[in-house]
Amino acid sequence: MSSNTFGRYLRLTTFGESHGPAVGAVLDGLPPRLNLDLTGVQRELDRRRPGASSVASARREPDRVQVLSGLFDGQTTGAPLCLVIASEDARPADYEPLRELLRPGHADATYHQKYGIRDWRGGGRASGRETAARVAAGAVARQLLAPLGVRVVGQVIELAGVVADPDPDVAPESPVRCGDPEAAARMEAAIEQARAEGDSVGGVVQVIASGVPAGWGDPVFGKLDALLAGALMSIGAVKGVEVGDGFALARMMGSEANDALVPGGFATNRAGGVLGGISTGQDLVLRCAVKPTPSIRKTQTTVDTSGQPATISAQGRHDPCIAPRLVPVAEAMTCLVLADAWLAQRALVG
Amino acid sequence: MSSNTFGRYLRLTTFGESHGPAVGAVLDGLPPRLNLDLTGVQRELDRRRPGASSVASARREPDRVQVLSGLFDGQTTGAPLCLVIASEDARPADYEPLRELLRPGHADATYHQKYGIRDWRGGGRASGRETAARVAAGAVARQLLAPLGVRVVGQVIELAGVVADPDPDVAPESPVRCGDPEAAARMEAAIEQARAEGDSVGGVVQVIASGVPAGWGDPVFGKLDALLAGALMSIGAVKGVEVGDGFALARMMGSEANDALVPGGFATNRAGGVLGGISTGQDLVLRCAVKPTPSIRKTQTTVDTSGQPATISAQGRHDPCIAPRLVPVAEAMTCLVLADAWLAQRALVG
Amino acid sequence: MSSNTFGRYLRLTTFGESHGPAVGAVLDGLPPRLNLDLTGVQRELDRRRPGASSVASARREPDRVQVLSGLFDGQTTGAPLCLVIASEDARPADYEPLRELLRPGHADATYHQKYGIRDWRGGGRASGRETAARVAAGAVARQLLAPLGVRVVGQVIELAGVVADPDPDVAPESPVRCGDPEAAARMEAAIEQARAEGDSVGGVVQVIASGVPAGWGDPVFGKLDALLAGALMSIGAVKGVEVGDGFALARMMGSEANDALVPGGFATNRAGGVLGGISTGQDLVLRCAVKPTPSIRKTQTTVDTSGQPATISAQGRHDPCIAPRLVPVAEAMTCLVLADAWLAQRALVG
Amino acid sequence: MSSNTFGRYLRLTTFGESHGPAVGAVLDGLPPRLNLDLTGVQRELDRRRPGASSVASARREPDRVQVLSGLFDGQTTGAPLCLVIASEDARPADYEPLRELLRPGHADATYHQKYGIRDWRGGGRASGRETAARVAAGAVARQLLAPLGVRVVGQVIELAGVVADPDPDVAPESPVRCGDPEAAARMEAAIEQARAEGDSVGGVVQVIASGVPAGWGDPVFGKLDALLAGALMSIGAVKGVEVGDGFALARMMGSEANDALVPGGFATNRAGGVLGGISTGQDLVLRCAVKPTPSIRKTQTTVDTSGQPATISAQGRHDPCIAPRLVPVAEAMTCLVLADAWLAQRALVG
Repeated sequence: MSSNTFGRYLRLTTFGESHGPAVGAVLDGLPPRLNLDLTGVQRELDRRRPGASSVASARREPDRVQVLSGLFDGQTTGAPLCLVIASEDARPADYEPLRELLRPGHADATYHQKYGIRDWRGGGRASGRETAARVAAGAVARQLLAPLGVRVVGQVIELAGVVADPDPDVAPESPVRCGDPEAAARMEAAIEQARAEGDSVGGVVQVIASGVPAGWGDPVFGKLDALLAGALMSIGAVKGVEVGDGFALARMMGSEANDALVPGGFATNRAGGVLGGISTGQDLVLRCAVKPTPSIRKTQTTVDTSGQPATISAQGRHDPCIAPRLVPVAEAMTCLVLADAWLAQRALVG
Repeated sequence: MSSNTFGRYLRLTTFGESHGPAVGAVLDGLPPRLNLDLTGVQRELDRRRPGASSVASARREPDRVQVLSGLFDGQTTGAPLCLVIASEDARPADYEPLRELLRPGHADATYHQKYGIRDWRGGGRASGRETAARVAAGAVARQLLAPLGVRVVGQVIELAGVVADPDPDVAPESPVRCGDPEAAARMEAAIEQARAEGDSVGGVVQVIASGVPAGWGDPVFGKLDALLAGALMSIGAVKGVEVGDGFALARMMGSEANDALVPGGFATNRAGGVLGGISTGQDLVLRCAVKPTPSIRKTQTTVDTSGQPATISAQGRHDPCIAPRLVPVAEAMTCLVLADAWLAQRALVG
Repeated sequence: MSSNTFGRYLRLTTFGESHGPAVGAVLDGLPPRLNLDLTGVQRELDRRRPGASSVASARREPDRVQVLSGLFDGQTTGAPLCLVIASEDARPADYEPLRELLRPGHADATYHQKYGIRDWRGGGRASGRETAARVAAGAVARQLLAPLGVRVVGQVIELAGVVADPDPDVAPESPVRCGDPEAAARMEAAIEQARAEGDSVGGVVQVIASGVPAGWGDPVFGKLDALLAGALMSIGAVKGVEVGDGFALARMMGSEANDALVPGGFATNRAGGVLGGISTGQDLVLRCAVKPTPSIRKTQTTVDTSGQPATISAQGRHDPCIAPRLVPVAEAMTCLVLADAWLAQRALVG
Repeated sequence: MSSNTFGRYLRLTTFGESHGPAVGAVLDGLPPRLNLDLTGVQRELDRRRPGASSVASARREPDRVQVLSGLFDGQTTGAPLCLVIASEDARPADYEPLRELLRPGHADATYHQKYGIRDWRGGGRASGRETAARVAAGAVARQLLAPLGVRVVGQVIELAGVVADPDPDVAPESPVRCGDPEAAARMEAAIEQARAEGDSVGGVVQVIASGVPAGWGDPVFGKLDALLAGALMSIGAVKGVEVGDGFALARMMGSEANDALVPGGFATNRAGGVLGGISTGQDLVLRCAVKPTPSIRKTQTTVDTSGQPATISAQGRHDPCIAPRLVPVAEAMTCLVLADAWLAQRALVG
């Protein structure tokens, strides 16, 4: 219903615009007596924030999380947890020249058409800054999942055509969030080249959730992979989502695509840890396609708000590739879906 | 919340098992005074039903739709519309040999783990038969959209590795639901070969919605493409979803990926008709990866319900490729999401 | 969202019109492996159905419940349970004279204004017949609650001004559903007198839920009493709802109204078993005001659908007092709310 | 689902504890381009805040509303509006003596049982301070309704047994929020006497919504009066809700209770402006029973958190009667339900 609310049992409502006073998250349905580690929440925000690495935007936001409600003596109380992240380096004036211009690849035109009003200061609600609230809430969901043995690790597995072959379970430390050092180096080079050309590049982010017990997720419309696909596709730049072997499965024979059952589990995991929308107990494997950053320095053809032809060249502080910063966001969405599925299963079978 | 309910403003609840007495749909939130054409609903069911073509399963279900509520003098009344499709060719006894066997690639193992009880008669709730209810409801949604000029056409664009290049706007008449006759012939041959080998094949289904006005869809979690991705991924055999150029966008430069704005619209449509989660007014372009039918005659390794090794060879009536029959299902889900988005936009701006 | 769907964790969707082919209920979120006693469901329907007693309408409906889905070997499977009750004694022609007349006290005028179309056959969706679906679903919820020790008993405690003082925990067998035999006799007489005069009377129905553990219900908008009040007020003829001492509390001093805490519980139960929206472990005490049946034989002033003055005299088969038949409906809604609260608490704390 | 979220189309999520840093509201689904008058929002908060009159608590909160998101150039944008009200006069230390005591009539015992943790600083989430967020959001809903001609006016019509007969349409200025000056004076005296005795009193609040067009509200579970009853019963101290003549209708004959239809409307309004859950176009008439403030200076019997007998005497800053301060809260909830119903009707019929 609410497009700014996510989840069924664990429900996240977010608010805030790119250059408004703050973005924030209200997380409801949290079990009580969770010892919330705010340092852990901050760590996830630090992974997402701009200016965190040489390959990201130069906007300098400390992105400090502040708790407005729901915590007492360090524990959740069952009341909604409100987390707020104030904007400190907002520079709406930077966007003044773009006031009348609709940026290609952005939501400027569609917001204008939908609402008849548009907060032109850096994209307003459509800005990637909105994802800070998701990351903060996802970090809380991660802390719900950790004691159950569930671990969610994402990384960039492809960027600007450079395909990596990383250890899927190791959270990468590299600026491009890729655990294959050789590929990571080439990815960084590709980003720098795109920056030099005033252009941008895309990539593929993979998220693996290990330790998910069999039996999470629901049939028909509430399939675990359907919820995850919707969750990942709701991240700004994502244009495709795969589960397990994904599109490659469409090219296999059934005898090849089926994962044989063996005592205690499965021989393979082409299905990506989900059958009939319910977790199998194997690793959940997700991938999403991330389009290149639409804001580029190269001159592009566009129109202004009155429909007249114009050209545009982005001068702001933009990432030449958003994929690395999308890693913690995709992880956060995965954590939120999984924590929700856990509560759903508790409601169903106790 | 309910995993058997879909939608926000136009809400579909489905029920029914593969070999139970009926499957059905309750559609709520329908605007009143729609002249419902039941022949049109039946036509969509006929496109989906088994036994409809030489390449599909031999189960013979007439799939006649019956209206239990919500219609008066041929018009919707604002009350929930209940459509029921009785099962006539259910043969639960066919599944007796599989009572203790968990079929690879099916939801048998996961339902067993989740619920501790499993309706083993042909997959129960996890059966593809559940989609008949979606198709019936989607046909109603299609009739809501038609007067607005919205048209939803799907087809198979790839099958068993055969890539087609069809006219995207023409609903294909071929048994494989592919509008490129030369490719369609090769696809049929591939299906027959798989059948002969006791194996199965997968494919890619594309759905294009034309005539969607700019401004449908919502920001953040309610993005039009997020809802569509979740909707399509909720169809049994779907393992991947793309919007517009999808995964190919991850390999482009920003200057190539952005659709330039021109007076009156856009120069290209790489984004697939959606920016920031809101429709642009261009064609909505969706694709989904369909895995091969898991039930195959070839002997497979599996376990029984007590975890002991076993082998299995499907003897039932199964499609060697589910992709053609998935076309009306994918269209139905698209129609449901779009009709819902239309009502959402009416609520928001009148 | 859906006005025909009720509940959060245990979700009931109902459909059907008074003189359509059937009314039905889809109940989703049911825990698996409940041995469903269909005889118990039928027994509740029998308590509600017309023609069951000398004081009720003469419409003769057997109201046989039929299961379309969600049951396997007598157990719930986790799939949605669809219960259908076919209409056998529908006589839409009886309503032909009322086609153009708007009945006072009924929803005729408001449906006409809201939808621009109205199923005039006996009230259509606004008919009390809709409550058969609630009763069937409530009987299932009751079976979820029974093993937890929760028992829900309703009765008429006031009718036509006759105030009863019944044992609150004993389900009354009398036709007027009142456990105080002396008052029940006077109530029956009052109903017969109203019938003789071509008029109707109202009453007050009380529902007591015993055995509800402390801790069910949620703060703020999800208060247990708020959900119960909404649930009871959603029953057609109900115009007021009280919890515990209700309106009488507004006339007490705080020192009198507060229930003192004593070791192991409370000294009194003026609050009606709920504090801050959460159950106290005491009996939940609810009362609802039931207006007189609006359809009466006495001539009334009204207008026709074109707004012209007219008179009306109901000739159909109507109860002169709906309160006794409302008892199982109020119990059903209470059971649905409580079962939902139980699942909610399981989601929250396991 | 979320117990801290209210509404279907216009959705309010609230957060915050009595003595935490702030309470707040996130309002989603707001139509864009509403010129929001923040002065009007503040005015409603001023009506609710403690310390506003001689008959209310001495806690001195300026209750200044701050906008964190959703507003641009003074207009709503379609993005969620986040309103925050910081706590300035929080004195958690005042509650230190009550740390181990469970206050009669409060939610202390039930929160303790439900969550196993309790924010004892003034009731935490269960405090009446939570209603500040409702009032702020309701003031926004009121501004949506005003251009449609809808006006919502509440007042105290009974207090400590003093029954008033005020002009229902005039918002009262008196400290007790009662528009009948003679009765208001006696109510004030009753409150002062209760304060002197260390006790408290209750009352009845009436809310009338005029200008509501016919056709708002939905059938079955989404009846306008069902939503309103749930909304009002969700306010802390409310223990009963009536619509129209409410419980008095249970004592009338049908011929007396029915509102005759006359050309252009109805002869009377016993139904309180709603039939079959849908507005009739007449005044919506609601009343709620407000229990006496549970915190009183008089010594009461209770137990401590370990279940041992104890006595308690409230020393904090408490209203001897909460009914006057409840008026703006009841109005706010009514405005929220009505604005939601308006959007629902737009979704349904455009």
